Amino acid sequence: MISLLIDGRPTNCLDPLDRGFQYGDGVFSTLPVHAGVPLFLDRHLDRLRRDALRLGIPFPSRSDLMADISTLLSHRQAGILKIQITRGSGGRGYRPPEHPTAMRVIALHPPVTYPEEYAVHGIEARYCEIRLGLNPALAGIKHMNRLEQVLARSEWSDPSIVEGLMLDYDGHVIEGTMSNVFVVSKGCILTPRLDRCGVNGVMRSLVLEAAGDLGWPLEEARLTPDGVAAAEEVFLTNSVIGLWPVRDIEGQRFTIGKATRKIGEWLRYKTRQAGRSGSSVG
Amino acid sequence: MISLLIDGRPTNCLDPLDRGFQYGDGVFSTLPVHAGVPLFLDRHLDRLRRDALRLGIPFPSRSDLMADISTLLSHRQAGILKIQITRGSGGRGYRPPEHPTAMRVIALHPPVTYPEEYAVHGIEARYCEIRLGLNPALAGIKHMNRLEQVLARSEWSDPSIVEGLMLDYDGHVIEGTMSNVFVVSKGCILTPRLDRCGVNGVMRSLVLEAAGDLGWPLEEARLTPDGVAAAEEVFLTNSVIGLWPVRDIEGQRFTIGKATRKIGEWLRYKTRQAGRSGSSVG
Repeated sequence: MISLLIDGRPTNCLDPLDRGFQYGDGVFSTLPVHAGVPLFLDRHLDRLRRDALRLGIPFPSRSDLMADISTLLSHRQAGILKIQITRGSGGRGYRPPEHPTAMRVIALHPPVTYPEEYAVHGIEARYCEIRLGLNPALAGIKHMNRLEQVLARSEWSDPSIVEGLMLDYDGHVIEGTMSNVFVVSKGCILTPRLDRCGVNGVMRSLVLEAAGDLGWPLEEARLTPDGVAAAEEVFLTNSVIGLWPVRDIEGQRFTIGKATRKIGEWLRYKTRQAGRSGSSVG
Repeated sequence: MISLLIDGRPTNCLDPLDRGFQYGDGVFSTLPVHAGVPLFLDRHLDRLRRDALRLGIPFPSRSDLMADISTLLSHRQAGILKIQITRGSGGRGYRPPEHPTAMRVIALHPPVTYPEEYAVHGIEARYCEIRLGLNPALAGIKHMNRLEQVLARSEWSDPSIVEGLMLDYDGHVIEGTMSNVFVVSKGCILTPRLDRCGVNGVMRSLVLEAAGDLGWPLEEARLTPDGVAAAEEVFLTNSVIGLWPVRDIEGQRFTIGKATRKIGEWLRYKTRQAGRSGSSVG
């Protein structure tokens, strides 16, 4: 069952004129809730706020958002929280109203479970055909224009392939359909620069911190499929899955090496810590 | 007042889990209704169907769509009809359900009126800063991922500037925020090729027919701002505005020449004809 609040009210009735539905004019974030604690909620709200402001969408008050989340969690203590902030309705065609009123849609979905082996033994990935268009004005933002990801995820149905890697228009590796990607090459962790497309994930920013903390060199780089093929280790992250090593991309095998293991341990430690200290809600 | 039907029912209650709201996973078309006749409806439905199928969205039956439109027009005889077709709800994250059920949202908005002088004496346009990302898989489709247009239309508020021209990532002129663009250069009509981005408008396809009919050479080309500056005439089209000559782009003046006038006359003739023969609804 999905519990859902629109602007704080329990309803399943969305205004069809909302610009989120009309144009995908909004941003979102997805995060797991464990034992009543939405993990890394502050980071998700910070990212949402940053993304909304880049699009000129006024950000709702933190206290309204916290009150909504608290209401949802009073009924159920675990699941996947999805927060959407749109520019609301109004304006003339594409032109936004001069003073838009944001709309917030917050849903608590049932927990998502993936096989434990994904995190332990790694997953199999493929490359997607569809590319990511380049647009610095939208790059990094987790906005609601996600047709490229929908089409990418439609490309395969083989359940043994767990994630698809996406290239940009110029042929650079950018991300998975729902994850950020990292490779380990000659002792250095590389992750795609997200200045022209891609989503700047909360878990990605945690990996950047982890690398700093653990003393692993990490660089944001232009990565090619050849660069990935030459790497020793590959791993993927997002807020729901945490970290998945990649053991196979279209037949090429990768090991789960020291960097992947150390970063994974650091993330699990921080996640447990976040789960304990997350008393900010409710 | 806006009348609206969702899957044939008069309601203002949209499912927030609809993939149109979640991901912009849908297509749309906008067309004027005059004296009970939705202009060029068949062409709009053909384009919608083509766009939906390119995205793998099953297209609703023509008779359902016609029944909806007929219901809306039984209350009001004039306005702007907006038809949205989404992939419905369901699936797991970006992954669409194996057998999606399309959702149709059809709204009749009040008539939009623009000053008559726009069509007669031409309009003033500017170039937008934000560029269009390149993605052949989405090029030409009037899909619901329209953040680029929203941001482009947010760039100016000076009411004397009526439309903004958009370049693609490589610097080619592609379209206006809400219109297709044509230039007349050395006796030839040129319009941007839409193989990498842009929306293939219904009125654009009518201009292509007009040129053939009138014996004007017309080419789809890669157009640059320099190419536009070197042109003698510039005009814009969409289904609601018809044709607007452009008399000024950032200070550079253009004349309203023979090609623009002849194409405009042809379009007005066909539009009157469509208005009379459009007995297919209601």
